[in-house]
Amino acid sequence: MIYLDYSATTPVDNKVLETFNKVCMDYPGNSNSLHKLGIESKKLEDYATKKIMELLNLHNKEIIYTSGASESNNHIIKGICDKYKKRGNHIITTRLEHSSIKNTLEYMEENGFIIDYVNLKKNGEVDLDDLERLLNNKTILVSICAVDSELGIKQPIKEIKEILKKHPKCFFHSDCTQALGKIEVDFNNIDLASVSLHKIYGLKGIGLIIKNKNIVLSPLIHGGKSTTIFRSGTPPLPLIVSSMKAIELIVPKVKENYEYIKGLNEKIINRLKEEKGIYINSTKSSIPHIINISINNIKPETFVHALDTDEIYIGTRSACSKANTMSEAVYEVTKNKERALHSIRISLSYLTKEEEVEIFIKAFEKHYKKLNI
Amino acid sequence: MIYLDYSATTPVDNKVLETFNKVCMDYPGNSNSLHKLGIESKKLEDYATKKIMELLNLHNKEIIYTSGASESNNHIIKGICDKYKKRGNHIITTRLEHSSIKNTLEYMEENGFIIDYVNLKKNGEVDLDDLERLLNNKTILVSICAVDSELGIKQPIKEIKEILKKHPKCFFHSDCTQALGKIEVDFNNIDLASVSLHKIYGLKGIGLIIKNKNIVLSPLIHGGKSTTIFRSGTPPLPLIVSSMKAIELIVPKVKENYEYIKGLNEKIINRLKEEKGIYINSTKSSIPHIINISINNIKPETFVHALDTDEIYIGTRSACSKANTMSEAVYEVTKNKERALHSIRISLSYLTKEEEVEIFIKAFEKHYKKLNI
Repeated sequence: MIYLDYSATTPVDNKVLETFNKVCMDYPGNSNSLHKLGIESKKLEDYATKKIMELLNLHNKEIIYTSGASESNNHIIKGICDKYKKRGNHIITTRLEHSSIKNTLEYMEENGFIIDYVNLKKNGEVDLDDLERLLNNKTILVSICAVDSELGIKQPIKEIKEILKKHPKCFFHSDCTQALGKIEVDFNNIDLASVSLHKIYGLKGIGLIIKNKNIVLSPLIHGGKSTTIFRSGTPPLPLIVSSMKAIELIVPKVKENYEYIKGLNEKIINRLKEEKGIYINSTKSSIPHIINISINNIKPETFVHALDTDEIYIGTRSACSKANTMSEAVYEVTKNKERALHSIRISLSYLTKEEEVEIFIKAFEKHYKKLNI
Repeated sequence: MIYLDYSATTPVDNKVLETFNKVCMDYPGNSNSLHKLGIESKKLEDYATKKIMELLNLHNKEIIYTSGASESNNHIIKGICDKYKKRGNHIITTRLEHSSIKNTLEYMEENGFIIDYVNLKKNGEVDLDDLERLLNNKTILVSICAVDSELGIKQPIKEIKEILKKHPKCFFHSDCTQALGKIEVDFNNIDLASVSLHKIYGLKGIGLIIKNKNIVLSPLIHGGKSTTIFRSGTPPLPLIVSSMKAIELIVPKVKENYEYIKGLNEKIINRLKEEKGIYINSTKSSIPHIINISINNIKPETFVHALDTDEIYIGTRSACSKANTMSEAVYEVTKNKERALHSIRISLSYLTKEEEVEIFIKAFEKHYKKLNI
């Protein structure tokens, strides 16, 4: 089996699972309970939070535990809109965002907010001049992913933050789901960040909001105080501590893994770009972990299922998108509908072996020849 | 160690944890992915959902997986209010609800909804005549817990549903978090139910909405289609399948466990009610799993910490409530502020041993004598 869909989800690291099990067995108390078992759970929760703060180099930040990036994105957008609607009703975003941002913003649009989509340059990066043009005194939120899930384009977060400094009443949200664990992320350039653990060899069902301490968010989930006043519910302690472990395992290795994956990426791209009829949609600004291509004559599903027969697993766009629809992200970058209809995503990991890449390329060529009639 | 705070959270059943581990290892794919690993995950997800449907005897229902009861309660209330606000803006509830309902309804009140609290009878059950009086053609939601978390009062769900049949445009929501696994719940009497798995020896971080198939809910978490169109996010497959296991283990044993726990409950209540200055707040309508008492001269925290020294762990109200505040639920039933300020919750499980009850009673008497000066 060769798994090349790491951007959809990653296998759980054994050590993460061990941590989860240990906490399940050794810390049965609800961390909101006043008795000793509760206090011990609370202490472990605080330890894990502090450790995550250190690992991610967070200063003056608060971590909110959520059920995943979709909740984080919804909570940030709806929470800011609800809390700061008196300041303005204008939001700027991109056509590269995950469906949990795109659809949430469309919902906000139905509720009186105005959404603008910033232009992208040919390499897929945000056009900073256009961003400056779009910003006005009604803009309360700019939501731009650090790395998008389809083309893997790395956005100039630092430069965006520089521009936003001139607009102190506008918050900067960045979905870091595809960035954390793959590139170095400086959260100090981001007012509110979203993170998902199952994308970094952690467990499904947990995510983070990393936000500036002084930002008030309307709760998405009201109720009693939990780890924070902004999100209610019994803290899922085993998931929380397993998240600390996942971050601890991956973040220190980001640079080393990046270089290794870059090598794999070049091998694949160099071979595929020789083939006529195959287009590389990822740009020079894409991170090496994500390779987005289009095969104009072949349906993505057909190709995915062909590779299935060789136990090779690749993705079609992001796992959360509808099948048979055009990829807005690919269209936005390529301005080509055919390519946007026929995109495929190959996503790599430090777990990907060189031999796997060789086998994948051979299988790819075989099926391409067979299907491209 | 003697744990008597099972209504705050339960220890995970080993078999549930085994299931979780197995799914983590054997089903690495994202169930939204199109390739074979995704399809296999999706099949398992569907199997688990079907099994839960069978175990809970659900007909014409849809299950929505959430991160827990707090999300379920928020999603149901906000989702109904948003979707059906044109029908009316009136909601009826009780003073017994969990903070994730109480605070959500207060938020809805700030946003133009009118909330009425139905009177309770002396036994803590909803006064059905008062419910009938409060219902009007603007009522879109009645939210009444099946069993409340503080006093454990079992509400007449079937009779409430009978009354609501005359109001077909009003939905009936019942928080079943403290009911499932403790008593038999007929979900066919409830339009929308909330459930949490960590209260029934499952894992923290997963809950359910069980709703009539034909009810449309505005999403709380927008994004791509997941297991349902109403809740986005990568399905947490290991948590989902572990939930099936938790339900499979507990639901068939509800009757048997109930009788056993009833015996333990009687032992405790019979001894405690002999003591002067101790008041039993739970009523004849309370389920035996939850014993709510007040000790007028002693702060609940003081008593909890005294028992801590003997490694006996009991609760103060619900784990999600603020300390040092009056319990609205206890006040509503007892109409006594002192008792509402000094309530303690002892919650029992099928895991509670008879000897543990004996030791608890002795320790209780010892500390009560010492502290009650």
